[in-house]
Amino acid sequence: MGRTPPHPEVSEFGLQQVLEALVDPVRRSIVTQLDASDADIKCGDFDIPVSKSTATHHFNVLREAGLIRQYYVGTARMNTLRRDEMDQAFPGLLAALTTPQARAAQPLAG
Amino acid sequence: MGRTPPHPEVSEFGLQQVLEALVDPVRRSIVTQLDASDADIKCGDFDIPVSKSTATHHFNVLREAGLIRQYYVGTARMNTLRRDEMDQAFPGLLAALTTPQARAAQPLAG
Repeated sequence: MGRTPPHPEVSEFGLQQVLEALVDPVRRSIVTQLDASDADIKCGDFDIPVSKSTATHHFNVLREAGLIRQYYVGTARMNTLRRDEMDQAFPGLLAALTTPQARAAQPLAG
Repeated sequence: MGRTPPHPEVSEFGLQQVLEALVDPVRRSIVTQLDASDADIKCGDFDIPVSKSTATHHFNVLREAGLIRQYYVGTARMNTLRRDEMDQAFPGLLAALTTPQARAAQPLAG
C-alpha cells in the first residue's frame, strides 16, 4: 500500500487543472475508455498510441487532477475513473465528454 | 454586413478545438459572462484583464471554435453565445462549465 500514489481530495479539484488534463486527446481517450469499461483497467491495457513513459506522464496528470484513482494489484497499476467525485466537484462535465457526440468527435480510440 | 467575420456551421464544430478554446481562463470568462448576461455584449464591455489586441485574439479563437457569434451594430462588435448550436454539437458541455461549482472555480470575473 505504500506504493499507492497521492490523490487529491474532491475539495482540492480545480477546474483549470481538470480542463488542462482533458484538453489532451490521449488523456481524454483514457477517460473515455474507463467510462466505457465495466471494470478498472491496467495501465498497460489502454489502447493509446504513445510510449509507456509518455503514458505514465498522462496517467500522472489525470491522477493529479482528480480524474482517475490508481492502485496496485500485485505489480499491475490499475485505474478507476473518479466519476462520482468529479460529478460532485463539476457536475455534468464528465458526462458531457462521454456523450455519443463527444465520443464520435474523439480522434483516438475510446 | 460585409464585415461580419466567418463562423463555422454546427457540423464543423470540433471537440478538440472547443476544448482548446475553453481551457483558457480568459476565454472561459468571456463565455461565462455571456452565459450570465440577458443581452449580447460588446467586445469592449467584458470584464477581462487583457489588452484590446489580446482580447481580439481570444474572441477570434472562440468564434472559430463555434462558441460565440459576432456581428456589428454600427462600429461595435457584438457577441452572442451560440448555446443552442453548441448544445446540439456537444450536449451538456456549456452547461457543465457554467454550473455554480464551475463558476466558483473560475479564477477570473464571470
